[in-house]
Amino acid sequence: MVENAIPPTMKAWVLGAPNELLLVDKPVPRPRAGEVLVRIGATAVCGTDLEVIAQGEPALIEGGAPFNKNFTPGHEYMGTVAALGPGVDEFEVGERIAVEIHAGCGRCERCREGMYTACVNYGMNYGEHDKGHRANGFTTDGGFAQYAVNHVNTLVRVPEGMGDEEATLIVTAGTATYGIDVLGGLIAGQTLVVTGPGPIGLMAVGVAKALGAGLVILTGTRQDRRRLDIGRKLGADVVVDVDEDEPVSAVRRITGGKGAHYVMECSGAPNAVNQAARMVSRGGRICLAAFAHQPVMVDMAYIVSNNIYLFGIRGEGKSATRRAASLLAQKRFAAGLIHTHTFPFEQVPTAIRHARERIEDPIKIVVRMQS
Amino acid sequence: MVENAIPPTMKAWVLGAPNELLLVDKPVPRPRAGEVLVRIGATAVCGTDLEVIAQGEPALIEGGAPFNKNFTPGHEYMGTVAALGPGVDEFEVGERIAVEIHAGCGRCERCREGMYTACVNYGMNYGEHDKGHRANGFTTDGGFAQYAVNHVNTLVRVPEGMGDEEATLIVTAGTATYGIDVLGGLIAGQTLVVTGPGPIGLMAVGVAKALGAGLVILTGTRQDRRRLDIGRKLGADVVVDVDEDEPVSAVRRITGGKGAHYVMECSGAPNAVNQAARMVSRGGRICLAAFAHQPVMVDMAYIVSNNIYLFGIRGEGKSATRRAASLLAQKRFAAGLIHTHTFPFEQVPTAIRHARERIEDPIKIVVRMQS
Amino acid sequence: MVENAIPPTMKAWVLGAPNELLLVDKPVPRPRAGEVLVRIGATAVCGTDLEVIAQGEPALIEGGAPFNKNFTPGHEYMGTVAALGPGVDEFEVGERIAVEIHAGCGRCERCREGMYTACVNYGMNYGEHDKGHRANGFTTDGGFAQYAVNHVNTLVRVPEGMGDEEATLIVTAGTATYGIDVLGGLIAGQTLVVTGPGPIGLMAVGVAKALGAGLVILTGTRQDRRRLDIGRKLGADVVVDVDEDEPVSAVRRITGGKGAHYVMECSGAPNAVNQAARMVSRGGRICLAAFAHQPVMVDMAYIVSNNIYLFGIRGEGKSATRRAASLLAQKRFAAGLIHTHTFPFEQVPTAIRHARERIEDPIKIVVRMQS
Amino acid sequence: MVENAIPPTMKAWVLGAPNELLLVDKPVPRPRAGEVLVRIGATAVCGTDLEVIAQGEPALIEGGAPFNKNFTPGHEYMGTVAALGPGVDEFEVGERIAVEIHAGCGRCERCREGMYTACVNYGMNYGEHDKGHRANGFTTDGGFAQYAVNHVNTLVRVPEGMGDEEATLIVTAGTATYGIDVLGGLIAGQTLVVTGPGPIGLMAVGVAKALGAGLVILTGTRQDRRRLDIGRKLGADVVVDVDEDEPVSAVRRITGGKGAHYVMECSGAPNAVNQAARMVSRGGRICLAAFAHQPVMVDMAYIVSNNIYLFGIRGEGKSATRRAASLLAQKRFAAGLIHTHTFPFEQVPTAIRHARERIEDPIKIVVRMQS
Repeated sequence: MVENAIPPTMKAWVLGAPNELLLVDKPVPRPRAGEVLVRIGATAVCGTDLEVIAQGEPALIEGGAPFNKNFTPGHEYMGTVAALGPGVDEFEVGERIAVEIHAGCGRCERCREGMYTACVNYGMNYGEHDKGHRANGFTTDGGFAQYAVNHVNTLVRVPEGMGDEEATLIVTAGTATYGIDVLGGLIAGQTLVVTGPGPIGLMAVGVAKALGAGLVILTGTRQDRRRLDIGRKLGADVVVDVDEDEPVSAVRRITGGKGAHYVMECSGAPNAVNQAARMVSRGGRICLAAFAHQPVMVDMAYIVSNNIYLFGIRGEGKSATRRAASLLAQKRFAAGLIHTHTFPFEQVPTAIRHARERIEDPIKIVVRMQS
Repeated sequence: MVENAIPPTMKAWVLGAPNELLLVDKPVPRPRAGEVLVRIGATAVCGTDLEVIAQGEPALIEGGAPFNKNFTPGHEYMGTVAALGPGVDEFEVGERIAVEIHAGCGRCERCREGMYTACVNYGMNYGEHDKGHRANGFTTDGGFAQYAVNHVNTLVRVPEGMGDEEATLIVTAGTATYGIDVLGGLIAGQTLVVTGPGPIGLMAVGVAKALGAGLVILTGTRQDRRRLDIGRKLGADVVVDVDEDEPVSAVRRITGGKGAHYVMECSGAPNAVNQAARMVSRGGRICLAAFAHQPVMVDMAYIVSNNIYLFGIRGEGKSATRRAASLLAQKRFAAGLIHTHTFPFEQVPTAIRHARERIEDPIKIVVRMQS
Repeated sequence: MVENAIPPTMKAWVLGAPNELLLVDKPVPRPRAGEVLVRIGATAVCGTDLEVIAQGEPALIEGGAPFNKNFTPGHEYMGTVAALGPGVDEFEVGERIAVEIHAGCGRCERCREGMYTACVNYGMNYGEHDKGHRANGFTTDGGFAQYAVNHVNTLVRVPEGMGDEEATLIVTAGTATYGIDVLGGLIAGQTLVVTGPGPIGLMAVGVAKALGAGLVILTGTRQDRRRLDIGRKLGADVVVDVDEDEPVSAVRRITGGKGAHYVMECSGAPNAVNQAARMVSRGGRICLAAFAHQPVMVDMAYIVSNNIYLFGIRGEGKSATRRAASLLAQKRFAAGLIHTHTFPFEQVPTAIRHARERIEDPIKIVVRMQS
Repeated sequence: MVENAIPPTMKAWVLGAPNELLLVDKPVPRPRAGEVLVRIGATAVCGTDLEVIAQGEPALIEGGAPFNKNFTPGHEYMGTVAALGPGVDEFEVGERIAVEIHAGCGRCERCREGMYTACVNYGMNYGEHDKGHRANGFTTDGGFAQYAVNHVNTLVRVPEGMGDEEATLIVTAGTATYGIDVLGGLIAGQTLVVTGPGPIGLMAVGVAKALGAGLVILTGTRQDRRRLDIGRKLGADVVVDVDEDEPVSAVRRITGGKGAHYVMECSGAPNAVNQAARMVSRGGRICLAAFAHQPVMVDMAYIVSNNIYLFGIRGEGKSATRRAASLLAQKRFAAGLIHTHTFPFEQVPTAIRHARERIEDPIKIVVRMQS
């Protein structure tokens, strides 16, 4: 292990009672073979952080470990390489990096076919059952701390000249890029509807235009007005306020009756899948990138008779985060527009409260270390 | 046009009032460029025929033409090449052929990418808007008649030594083959669950084993007992009676907790999509080959967080019917087992009634011309 | 057929003796079902035109028809829709369009899977064997005339505000786009080497950057200096003069020893395939878009042991030309830079001579109708 | 580590001078995290073993380590799980297993996309640069010994009732299966030519038929007569003796002029690539699974103008070996027919000599431990 003045302990926020975060001292973790110690520079708040903080590790994960009182959440972070585990020479101490969330186990069927975000050994990284899977801030300690250990697979170099806050957005751009990948990747000149102007939706707009999309339509509600405006700045050709304009007929009208080639569903709204199906032309494809909180009614016969494909994704596979970082390095779109608020590390609970209560309609809130 | 003693008129069943079929005399149609006249030998009854006969052309097709009192239904047929339209030399008069249903227009976006069953110009084959799309028995006259015209694309040679009745099953095997194609095709040694032992489900069992599938699990209800037995003969390694054994836990148990690689959903049951999602392992794929009659509740969050892909298919694309015919020619499985009843051409209404009322629990009913 | 003052005859250049072109009067052709009559505005000269003019239809096509003294060459053209054949409503008379070269037969195995540029019925568009395949300027009359008939599949709308000369380049951009498609399409943030700064190579540079490529390296010889400069303007990050810098070691050096992800081989040089194989990293992919004039020595063992894939392409499949037109409409790169010379229609032989003898080092020479 | 009476030392054959093998005592290796210790039961001799033994590690690998006097070759082996490294619960001590050759590093670009046989860190498994890549018998000690360590990824369960000798063939069947995978996998009902009746070629015949291939044509020379007969027993529909029947015209004749859909090139013959290109129809695909020993002349223009794709493969990726093992478990073809000779462990040099000098025309020679 090549070190660089690593202290033995660090400050870290950990889960207390549901919705309680405590600032404690923890030992600085040590990287194993293939791992890297990261000195954290900034960490963005994601909607799933709120769930972890409210309930412990995500309820959506089957067989999740019990609520862990010493667990540090936070998965959208960037920082500096502080130390290298054995065998790591892909990075050097001192390099600025952002992170993907998932390091698959590398040995299950899915990892072996390259689908590491669908690792069958999700969460298997402890004790005698340690398969090496890591999901930062979900199953291993995350980024609301001074240091975190990451598998080398999850590291992405921060483009030169990019600030810490913007660098925390790389992983969000990576998810959007991955979504377009699973839709087939040939988006140049094609029509994409993005439903829901949250962080992933807005990034999907930027990435799609950066990849040459012909027509990008972004939908949102009346309350999303500011976000729709940002979507326009990120490249959306048309924005649709669904409180004024029924979105399926809007898409049909805008596309001259043909429908879109693709939909990226980023809203999780109850009728979103049905609407997406009716937005695409026969044979169209839909990426599902949002979690609906309850089961929803879906007209499956429409999906079958119109030969529609639906792709559920979680996270940011296929090394898409690295390709997304390149798009940001090339300044293909102004990703920084979705960063709206910054808080210092000491105020993580305040940052979380702003996110949960939507104070000042934040899009991306970033927590920043003092330098 | 090379002819072979074609009479000017023929006997044909046509739609009357809903659920009424009339036997009439009609002119024998003439093949255009790229088309072939088929003298029909046998026609199987499919569930969608019942809908066409009850309602006119399928309600599922948007913008379908109005109920057509002179329309001849029937899409699963075989026969003999009776005459060739201009430019056709792929077949000879006298050859025995079975048919795919869909001839795409060849000029829309989907046809241009090879997805001809998702032709955007579905039904556009009349008057000044004629794009050349044909769906036999849905948008153009079908097989409950002495003759029918088919685009050369839809013809498949009947393997030597195969009887007329079995030849009508080629297209059903083609749909099952196509379903496995869209799942990725690499099914050898993998685990597939087929939900629903209807004709497509049973064929999926046979095709999957013919392609080397490792473990094929077939599910059905208590009433499906006879069909499950046939499924076993077609190669199913395990059959699950869902009235006795909850199917998700059965699949998990049979696969040692891992879940299946793939599900082919052929039941259309209300909870089928949710169950299929829980039957596959994380990152699994589901082909939707059945039409649920009402919208169903689907837990989309489960699909998203488990990275599941859903592929709606209609029909039998990618020339899968030809590959399926080859499997039957090689006698890889006993497709003929699903043929349970035969009626003469004069008794089409009786055949339809047996299908509709499930008299004697038929699987495939075939209507046969006298030779 | 909806017409618009179509004269009965037109001026057209036709093949005479080898390397001789004659200006004659010919009947204006009439569009059939699914076809369109185009009033030609401008036609670019391509290297393969020189072969057609020297030898009749391309020697590379097996079973090509004999040298046809009344044949009109020219395949990179644009113009205005002058009349619509039966069933065509996708375009209106008066619209400005550019063209793809290939309309597949729509009925062979390849067309049925969407690979229409690999149509098995290439050249089958005459007499009793007419399958409907068309390759403009190769097997059917082309664009060095006042009018030409095109299948509707080959038409691409010219973006508003684009001049006639630039519009002739759309098909070249389409070939480059298709090349990137067959490499897998996920080029954002990746490294591509383009070998050979001819029209396709230069367009590949522009398209790759428009699709978010990270690092694009363009190679050429000392004589290609001007073209390399244009390549830089089209977005190449690095250009390599192979007379000064051995290209394999240059690529290895520029990529920090890793090699490129992809090579688009556009030079046809004798050692190009071997060099391309050594430019990519293990598991890399190479698109072969140029015709080497003689068989070349290839170290196949290197290709096998490094798991390299080679994709030969001809033309511009998968509707890539339409996606390319969208990139040009969005002004993603300055395609017009490769257009260097214009001649009036009356001077086609002069234009051809400039191309053949490389007078004034032309890149794209365009022949233009007087308006 | 769960052990089972593991001795401290073992007998192992190691490289001496070129073409010399020495029987020595070595420490039994210990499995690390994710690894397994295998007590070897049988090891087949492969052509590449001869190269390793003649030259040290394969000359084809760039940057291969120097000739290693203590290195144990042998990569096609089977045995029994003797001990489990930390975190391994996928297998139990005592299970019979066969092995894949390659365990990728799991962290390079290729491994991350599932192409672990094209691992960019090939051979990086030593000292401070240890990335964890392993290629048994190439870069890590192999199977001509009593014990070997394997990464858990490389293990495949031996089907019940299969003998030790046949189990050594599983990896060869895996390579053939992988070759068909990279050709697209949709081989049911299609035509495949296998050129060269070596072990991989013969397995390709068996696997292709097991996957439903329509017509399989196997080519070989006069000396290959016995192998061609075995090919017929493995399912080849037609065998072509190239000394009597020019193979390209034979394939064209057998396919009615159409050509084959696919070629699996397993001969490495000087003209093999050119012939393969002319055997497939336009748009056809060729898998290159053999190493030509010198660079060969290739008519690249033919490949480009006929839209042919070439896929170089090394080894047995995409978990194909596991799918192949399932085909053998299902007794889909008589893989054991290619096993022709057995020698005891003490006679490894004799076995190698039989292979090198082709004594008694062996196909697969297996070395077997005494039980």
